Amino acid sequence: MSKINEYSLGLDFGTNSVRALVLNLRTGEETASAEAFYPSGEAGVLTSGNPHLARQNPDDYRKCLLTVVPSVLDKAREDHHFCPEAVIGIGVDATGSSPLPVDKCAAPLAFQKRFADNLDAQVWLWKDHTSSEEAEIITRLAQKLRPQYLDKYGGSYSSEWFFSKIWRCLNVNPDVFQAAWTWVELADYIPALLTGCDDASQIKRGACAAGHKAMFNKEWGGLPDRSFLTRIHPEIGKLRDRLFDSVLTSDRPVGFLSPEWAEKLGVRPGIPVAAGALDAHLGAVGSGIGKGVLVKIIGTSTCDILVSPRGKKIRDIPGMSGIADGSVLPGITGIEAGQSAVGDIFNWFVSQVCRGDESLHEELSKKASNLHPGESGLLALDWNNGNRSVLVDYRLTGLLVGQTLHTGREEIYRALIEATAFGARIIIERMEDFGVKIDRIINCGGIAEKNPLVMRIYADVLERPMEISASLQTCALGAAIMGGAAGRGETGTTAVRSLQDIACRQKTQIFSPKKKEGRIYDDLYMLYRRLHDAFGRRGRGKSLFPVMKELLKVKKKSVELFS
Amino acid sequence: MSKINEYSLGLDFGTNSVRALVLNLRTGEETASAEAFYPSGEAGVLTSGNPHLARQNPDDYRKCLLTVVPSVLDKAREDHHFCPEAVIGIGVDATGSSPLPVDKCAAPLAFQKRFADNLDAQVWLWKDHTSSEEAEIITRLAQKLRPQYLDKYGGSYSSEWFFSKIWRCLNVNPDVFQAAWTWVELADYIPALLTGCDDASQIKRGACAAGHKAMFNKEWGGLPDRSFLTRIHPEIGKLRDRLFDSVLTSDRPVGFLSPEWAEKLGVRPGIPVAAGALDAHLGAVGSGIGKGVLVKIIGTSTCDILVSPRGKKIRDIPGMSGIADGSVLPGITGIEAGQSAVGDIFNWFVSQVCRGDESLHEELSKKASNLHPGESGLLALDWNNGNRSVLVDYRLTGLLVGQTLHTGREEIYRALIEATAFGARIIIERMEDFGVKIDRIINCGGIAEKNPLVMRIYADVLERPMEISASLQTCALGAAIMGGAAGRGETGTTAVRSLQDIACRQKTQIFSPKKKEGRIYDDLYMLYRRLHDAFGRRGRGKSLFPVMKELLKVKKKSVELFS
Repeated sequence: MSKINEYSLGLDFGTNSVRALVLNLRTGEETASAEAFYPSGEAGVLTSGNPHLARQNPDDYRKCLLTVVPSVLDKAREDHHFCPEAVIGIGVDATGSSPLPVDKCAAPLAFQKRFADNLDAQVWLWKDHTSSEEAEIITRLAQKLRPQYLDKYGGSYSSEWFFSKIWRCLNVNPDVFQAAWTWVELADYIPALLTGCDDASQIKRGACAAGHKAMFNKEWGGLPDRSFLTRIHPEIGKLRDRLFDSVLTSDRPVGFLSPEWAEKLGVRPGIPVAAGALDAHLGAVGSGIGKGVLVKIIGTSTCDILVSPRGKKIRDIPGMSGIADGSVLPGITGIEAGQSAVGDIFNWFVSQVCRGDESLHEELSKKASNLHPGESGLLALDWNNGNRSVLVDYRLTGLLVGQTLHTGREEIYRALIEATAFGARIIIERMEDFGVKIDRIINCGGIAEKNPLVMRIYADVLERPMEISASLQTCALGAAIMGGAAGRGETGTTAVRSLQDIACRQKTQIFSPKKKEGRIYDDLYMLYRRLHDAFGRRGRGKSLFPVMKELLKVKKKSVELFS
Repeated sequence: MSKINEYSLGLDFGTNSVRALVLNLRTGEETASAEAFYPSGEAGVLTSGNPHLARQNPDDYRKCLLTVVPSVLDKAREDHHFCPEAVIGIGVDATGSSPLPVDKCAAPLAFQKRFADNLDAQVWLWKDHTSSEEAEIITRLAQKLRPQYLDKYGGSYSSEWFFSKIWRCLNVNPDVFQAAWTWVELADYIPALLTGCDDASQIKRGACAAGHKAMFNKEWGGLPDRSFLTRIHPEIGKLRDRLFDSVLTSDRPVGFLSPEWAEKLGVRPGIPVAAGALDAHLGAVGSGIGKGVLVKIIGTSTCDILVSPRGKKIRDIPGMSGIADGSVLPGITGIEAGQSAVGDIFNWFVSQVCRGDESLHEELSKKASNLHPGESGLLALDWNNGNRSVLVDYRLTGLLVGQTLHTGREEIYRALIEATAFGARIIIERMEDFGVKIDRIINCGGIAEKNPLVMRIYADVLERPMEISASLQTCALGAAIMGGAAGRGETGTTAVRSLQDIACRQKTQIFSPKKKEGRIYDDLYMLYRRLHDAFGRRGRGKSLFPVMKELLKVKKKSVELFS
């Protein structure tokens, strides 16, 4: 006699596709997964002549849902225990901050004929950087008026975030702004859609995106106060009443699957749909985050996720990208840090400098793995895309020092990997300096899965074992875990943790730190810190802090002079 | 009726070959030139397992003379005015410091059977770097006992130079050292050979190599005193008596062509053979050096040659590679500075990093020439092979800053060229700070001839017109000018200058500085200086001077730890 199985469905809305995962809540096994790619734009991203612009067509989510869910259920049926009636809940994660304007009926403005082709009425994708001026003014205003806000965001409000984007829309396209009843994060829009919400004032918001992107915090009573938002712009102040004053953690349902969507997807109507969260944060859940565990999601960039020790109030940590209650696990403060470019730096070197393809990554990794730490005499700063943590400065650039006439490309490749490892160590030391103890490091994401050299170097530089998540879909898995908790009505940290204990696995191969390598890396790390502080921190007199900034000014001057 | 023509023969002993040039002393035209490659070793260089070792077989010079001179005379006969009887003098230049041990009869020890295969009995080629320990000790001793010596050499005595090499031979091969009656620079050996000198005590020495490589200076009575040389080693002290106590400038004959060599070469016996000099210095003569003219010989590295204003005593200039009386033009002080790597850096980037060949140089130059100054946001230090002037520190390394995820290889290529231009500007400013006025810059050498982008950038960075020597054989031309002066018996600056006026030409294309470009480069140069001083000069507290040194220490530690 077989045991009764229960399943949950995790939906992960990424930059280019939606991934769906069916999780067996009894065994913790991933029964099936499927992926559907957004049909619009370039790999799902709407672009324009402006290289900073990145939008998404909200109709793509609907279209992808209609294929990816039936598809994953079909695949799950290959497991003869599975029946779709046994799916008891749905969890959702999405990129963010990716807000979209909706009308009073909670429908995207983009669905209206007059706005169908209007880029500003679409989803403002996380990597849209058109709002940098707005972000700078918000940062300056907060520095002056509400410094406490910035303490949770490493001292600056990003152009990628909620209010920067909404205000940008008001500045460049007031028609769209005025037509919007409210703005919703993609992570909140999907649950609202699935639960058939047709009143924008009733859309439930998740704690994660609200806390990390919209300055929502209990300490100051939720969203930034109306007077502050009015200082940004009177219209933003007015909008506050049509935003939200409470949030839900992802173990809590925002509502129940509508009959219409249940039929489209092929599961039972009325099953709970959990509050959505940001992809990295549910990726951390799917990787097994808990007290003392640092989850590193290593891809083109790196996102570091931690939670505060349970019940312990943590201090604000300077240089973290975000600190928000319940953003990862319910009832616990989530901490997010990151490196602006990791895999992107290796890709830059291989494709832009060496003009090679994927196979060159393999060749260089192989050759670089035959080198010993320190023997190249090279040292790099990993700032080709700025520095997210702990300097929080997007206007920093890369640096390589130590090259001779004999320096080989594989030595540079390794130095770039090492630089990202040193950058990771800076973040970890900052966290520990502020009392966050780290007992384990679990890695996930493309680079962690594919490049053993990176993991080996990280183990030696960080002087800790590197574990790697066994799941290839940690975000969708985290969403499914939350869908399971919400589906069972067993909310709270303990319930989520017990689902994690069943579902989260690490690969058996662990990269252990080596002594000799560690000694050399300690020396190199001291030198890295020296360069890091000289170029990255404002200082008096002979500081080199101005060099990178001045180079950017010269660049701007050059463009003006020769245009 | 045709006028009477007189000719001279210039012989240029390079690293891989000998070049011979016939100069028409009346018209200044190069009647003919020819080249003969050394038959021994790898392109003329004897090597061993030690990458720092570079020697040359002295028999190669004899062999090459027997082919290259008849060959150039044959070619010259195509000009129907020419007859070999009209050759009135011979001038010689050679690489250096390239000393060789000779016996009492002025014959190379290498010609003795017992030493024929002994690398230490051959010519110690200029680029032999086996003597670095000896050089360091000589430098330290001089700092302590005879600081005035080092004032002429930028503060340090090089491993490439005369006494470092001789002492090295004593340390590693005392048999060779004891068998040598004396040591002779290659530039002095060839004139001795051609004049049939068979008594080592009678070998005449040129002012150039003696002054730039063997610390010969009138200020302290010629060579370093015996007591100092004895402190290096008692045997070196004893050797002093078998070296020399006077020198000749290159307009003066060391003697007359022997009947034996006259017959072998096919010219009249008894014609004067001028004192030899270093190749760069006679290259400067062939390029038209004079008061206020800086000659830049730009190849894999760069050699900058200047002369002091006539009759004006110049102060010692810190950071110059050498200051020596009569080393370029008779009666005037010659000043030498240099950059340890120029073309070598571009070659490194193309071959080691990009893995391209000669055609990639062309491609990158073409693409880089479409970029405007400053628009890449990049800045580099040109220290991949250390810094010769003005820091005089061989243990410095390269640096690149400003790279983003979009930085292209042609941008890096251009930044490397610009870095060498900024390095050149540092040298020029140093010279001018010490009262040496520079009115014209004449460039020669492979890079100056082949890469117009380099010349364009140099013009804009140095904010002066860049002229390029029209001769492709400036060294052999300079030697021929000196051979002409010696042959006519018209010595002295005025005589040499009047021959230069006839023979030295510049290309009609002059690269003129551009205003807008210059403005941007002024900004970038300020930043270059900032990095230059931060990484290149000892400083207190937060100076980055130790970074490059520490990286070398870590490299050494790594090699030890993992060997």
